[in-house]
Amino acid sequence: MFNIALFGSGRIGQVHAVNIERNSESNLYSLVEPNDQYAEAFCKQYPNVKRQSVEEAMNDKTVDAVCICSSTNTHANLIELAAKAGKAIFCEKPIDLSLERVHECLTTVEKTKVPFLIGFNRRFDPHFLALKKALDEQKIGKPATMVITSRDPAPAPAEYSKSSGGMFKDMSIHDLDMACFILGEKPVSITAHGSCHVDPAIGEAGDIDTGIIVLTFPSGATATIFNSRRSGYGYDQRMEVHGETGMLQVANVTESQLFHSSKNGIESTTPLYFFLQRYQQAYADEWVHFVDVLKGGKPRCTGIDGELSLQLAEKAKESMEQQKTIML
Amino acid sequence: MFNIALFGSGRIGQVHAVNIERNSESNLYSLVEPNDQYAEAFCKQYPNVKRQSVEEAMNDKTVDAVCICSSTNTHANLIELAAKAGKAIFCEKPIDLSLERVHECLTTVEKTKVPFLIGFNRRFDPHFLALKKALDEQKIGKPATMVITSRDPAPAPAEYSKSSGGMFKDMSIHDLDMACFILGEKPVSITAHGSCHVDPAIGEAGDIDTGIIVLTFPSGATATIFNSRRSGYGYDQRMEVHGETGMLQVANVTESQLFHSSKNGIESTTPLYFFLQRYQQAYADEWVHFVDVLKGGKPRCTGIDGELSLQLAEKAKESMEQQKTIML
Amino acid sequence: MFNIALFGSGRIGQVHAVNIERNSESNLYSLVEPNDQYAEAFCKQYPNVKRQSVEEAMNDKTVDAVCICSSTNTHANLIELAAKAGKAIFCEKPIDLSLERVHECLTTVEKTKVPFLIGFNRRFDPHFLALKKALDEQKIGKPATMVITSRDPAPAPAEYSKSSGGMFKDMSIHDLDMACFILGEKPVSITAHGSCHVDPAIGEAGDIDTGIIVLTFPSGATATIFNSRRSGYGYDQRMEVHGETGMLQVANVTESQLFHSSKNGIESTTPLYFFLQRYQQAYADEWVHFVDVLKGGKPRCTGIDGELSLQLAEKAKESMEQQKTIML
Amino acid sequence: MFNIALFGSGRIGQVHAVNIERNSESNLYSLVEPNDQYAEAFCKQYPNVKRQSVEEAMNDKTVDAVCICSSTNTHANLIELAAKAGKAIFCEKPIDLSLERVHECLTTVEKTKVPFLIGFNRRFDPHFLALKKALDEQKIGKPATMVITSRDPAPAPAEYSKSSGGMFKDMSIHDLDMACFILGEKPVSITAHGSCHVDPAIGEAGDIDTGIIVLTFPSGATATIFNSRRSGYGYDQRMEVHGETGMLQVANVTESQLFHSSKNGIESTTPLYFFLQRYQQAYADEWVHFVDVLKGGKPRCTGIDGELSLQLAEKAKESMEQQKTIML
Repeated sequence: MFNIALFGSGRIGQVHAVNIERNSESNLYSLVEPNDQYAEAFCKQYPNVKRQSVEEAMNDKTVDAVCICSSTNTHANLIELAAKAGKAIFCEKPIDLSLERVHECLTTVEKTKVPFLIGFNRRFDPHFLALKKALDEQKIGKPATMVITSRDPAPAPAEYSKSSGGMFKDMSIHDLDMACFILGEKPVSITAHGSCHVDPAIGEAGDIDTGIIVLTFPSGATATIFNSRRSGYGYDQRMEVHGETGMLQVANVTESQLFHSSKNGIESTTPLYFFLQRYQQAYADEWVHFVDVLKGGKPRCTGIDGELSLQLAEKAKESMEQQKTIML
Repeated sequence: MFNIALFGSGRIGQVHAVNIERNSESNLYSLVEPNDQYAEAFCKQYPNVKRQSVEEAMNDKTVDAVCICSSTNTHANLIELAAKAGKAIFCEKPIDLSLERVHECLTTVEKTKVPFLIGFNRRFDPHFLALKKALDEQKIGKPATMVITSRDPAPAPAEYSKSSGGMFKDMSIHDLDMACFILGEKPVSITAHGSCHVDPAIGEAGDIDTGIIVLTFPSGATATIFNSRRSGYGYDQRMEVHGETGMLQVANVTESQLFHSSKNGIESTTPLYFFLQRYQQAYADEWVHFVDVLKGGKPRCTGIDGELSLQLAEKAKESMEQQKTIML
Repeated sequence: MFNIALFGSGRIGQVHAVNIERNSESNLYSLVEPNDQYAEAFCKQYPNVKRQSVEEAMNDKTVDAVCICSSTNTHANLIELAAKAGKAIFCEKPIDLSLERVHECLTTVEKTKVPFLIGFNRRFDPHFLALKKALDEQKIGKPATMVITSRDPAPAPAEYSKSSGGMFKDMSIHDLDMACFILGEKPVSITAHGSCHVDPAIGEAGDIDTGIIVLTFPSGATATIFNSRRSGYGYDQRMEVHGETGMLQVANVTESQLFHSSKNGIESTTPLYFFLQRYQQAYADEWVHFVDVLKGGKPRCTGIDGELSLQLAEKAKESMEQQKTIML
Repeated sequence: MFNIALFGSGRIGQVHAVNIERNSESNLYSLVEPNDQYAEAFCKQYPNVKRQSVEEAMNDKTVDAVCICSSTNTHANLIELAAKAGKAIFCEKPIDLSLERVHECLTTVEKTKVPFLIGFNRRFDPHFLALKKALDEQKIGKPATMVITSRDPAPAPAEYSKSSGGMFKDMSIHDLDMACFILGEKPVSITAHGSCHVDPAIGEAGDIDTGIIVLTFPSGATATIFNSRRSGYGYDQRMEVHGETGMLQVANVTESQLFHSSKNGIESTTPLYFFLQRYQQAYADEWVHFVDVLKGGKPRCTGIDGELSLQLAEKAKESMEQQKTIML
């Protein structure tokens, strides 16, 4: 049984708390949460969980691993502290918004050799994994063109743009990682376009809310990513890979299988509303994988993957600003 | 080039007129239409077509074949006249509403040995034919259960019930024929249920507007037919056959491939509105087949098929009234 | 926190065990399992669960409720014992295969007034509930025709027929219950057809493996049920209700949203394999509902529902044998 | 009745011949075809059609309009001759592969004021028109992102690249036109990527077989085009527009509505094989529109549209070669 210290009891912290508890080999041991109100609400729900300070958790020999779900600006510090304390680390993406800081942080992790898993939840989604399996089984031959559509249901307040690092670092980073993961290559060039369609305040905050990124890979394959901060119909998460002999597609997962036929047409339900619903199974499987990592398994996504995606996000911004293809 | 005398310039007559003209081996030679107004409108559209009386058409050596699209109560007489005049015959279903009359009529046809095709349009539908082909290719092994759904978009006026012979003879007859055609067997028993959901006036006229028929076949297979005089969403024409290793289904053909995603769901278009739209291709292919018959080919559906379906429709009524299974 | 004694650690017992444990208001307190090997394996997985005999569990004041997942022939006895011991009861269907025994048993339950929930899992399926909600919201007006398709992926061994009570009592019972639940009515007549397509040994055991049941309801609505012990493509669980202004359908839930386009066509994945996969969410929601019942809520399906379905299953057999409609 | 001189009896000439003949207001009067063998085969099929030389057709007062379906390098000359002869003109795209020549040619047309329709068949496709209608009806608010997928089933021989003007001018030109047509705007920038995945010989011939084009429009909307000379599963013709409140999509039209469920999955049929099948209705409607133009109607796509698309295709090549966004 692995004892887990959970950092952060927000939306995503709660998702992991459920999965930690449901896993027969992990135990939700303690919560580190600076906000008293949040901490109390959480501990009411999980009465066996003790509240700890960062220091207590790091120094507590009972803690086997940390699950970092606190705000982005705390990630790198906590990773370094945990690594030095010899704790295995699960950390939500991103490690940090600064590539230098990420690099520094990963160097520490590498030195300590603690197990480290970065939370790219989509890598654990059964639908995308089914596509990857079919691709690896040569169902469509060599891939030529990949298309990822990833649209949030509705935008966060424009202020969020300030702390998020901008759309490419905050949102596209998942899709950049998936493109590399599915194709099994690192891109050689990137071309990006961005615009502001959803909320002018996002533009005024210096960010974009709509983006297109084209990556080219050493094999010649390309991946095109469509991002929007607003869909109008739930969380749009689709993928398409076209190869020598055909195409593989992952369609959206909808609210239900109900269809209503009337004179107006045939109406089916919208895609699941947002990531908590859409990736519920992925989060559960991600935690199962982290328990495997705790038992000595090889992590399916490492700090290097996190670093690469962040770098691509930075280059995307550079390409967008310069209106040209950036060679990597 | 085969010269065709068309009997009746109503809705279905016009469908055949188009296909006769489009076929490079058939010529729309004359129209027999008692209603002056209809005849004039038709001849305006087809200026090369001459108007004839029944007698003129039957005695005209130039006429190679008749296409009978006039009202149901004229079919049997016209068939007999045409057979005696040595004309090849295409006749819309049914031959007659009375089994005795049908039998008498078919006896005449048989004696004269004129080519005869009964207009079971659905036998020519490319979708249903694709299902039959897959079935014959053993794609699902031996069939066990067949389900046919056939719903009109909206009911005809209740008075229509009086001349139509009732729902089983008028509407289910197509589905009864398809069940036999697809499965390649004649049923051994029939059980039918009927009710009135759509229009009370239909019930008052002694007819039903909603029906369920269960047929069993010598092989042990069953076919269940769902009929309604109203769908609310266009012409619902589906088929499903379940066999040893899987299932074959024909889904509806929709107005277009447009999909609209919004917060309300994903909306696609309704099935094509009614038989003229849904079976447009089937009617065209049916005529091509009749030209083949004129050239000596074997007709894909004969008077015997028409007789069998009518007989089944009668037995369906008997079963419904007696609330029990009728052995055939 | 409600302490639950679980009777039976088989396939379905394990499903409930997971849900009992996951629910923050229920505690998997003890297991009653006559088979030592099964019991040990179970207790290894749930080390905090104590093993008890039937008597111990019934006499243990700590036990608030029983969850009966043992073999069918033990259900009625356990229900009576639990009722007399004042325990709340969740029991998998059926209560018993004999209507008399069911009635006797329910009389005892009623006298003791203990909360009682019968495990008709499909009533908790979010897809079917979405259909019921839409129906109740008058999305299609008054229902006229309902069609339920329910096919197992592959047959159980023919010996199972002997203990199961036959296809109607074992399998169709779920669909009979759903027809009544969705339409909110009790049927007035039943007509059934059965045959043996899947395994001749099932027929030799006096059972059928393929069935069709037509129910009529006081409102005039009909429900037709298609059952098969074999689909060839997973667990086929569909529903369709046709009403005044349109149609509601629940389509199958598939393995994944992966689509593969090639020269052979567009291939999507099969329906989820069987009930454990298809109704995973339903089982979880069912348990949540039972916890509500423990807290004083009204049970969504009672012994009366179980009795009605069993009675309909018996009448289905009678109709099949007599080849006629049975009035209820 | 309008008398039409058809130039070219190849694949596309034959499509138009059928539609000219089927239209009650147009008459297939003559064929201009330099190849004797082709001409004879054609005239056998259409015995009433006379064969003419270019000069004869242009000087024949009976000819009301020309339908130019000959090889691309003859288009501009024939357009100029027809314009000077006062004939109305329907011309298959492109007018010419040289922008200068196109401009020159259109100047002549403009001077003579003859009716002129350029054959952008997809503008007449009922599915895309349904999308445009929904867009114009504000079904999704202001459009932000458009995606067009257009893949041929299989590549033409590499030699074709030499005469075709290259993939952007030959294939993407349709999609460039559709992006402008559907959005109702002219783009302000273009960014293109090209590669060779399908046939190395195409690359050796200096062409590409896989392309991605990103257009930005004055409104801020973008359109991304995916092209490939090979799909592996038929003619892939999809469109998606994402706007303020939702998304509109046109899915592929498939061979039939047959679905086959087996242990391998659920298999549906491929998209219609190529443009002759997929755009059969569009070609018919295009001709109906041209007859409207002959009667004084405003042409739905003019030489200006042809010129714009050609210019965009040239700029796409420039962008691809320079690896940067080109401002228009």
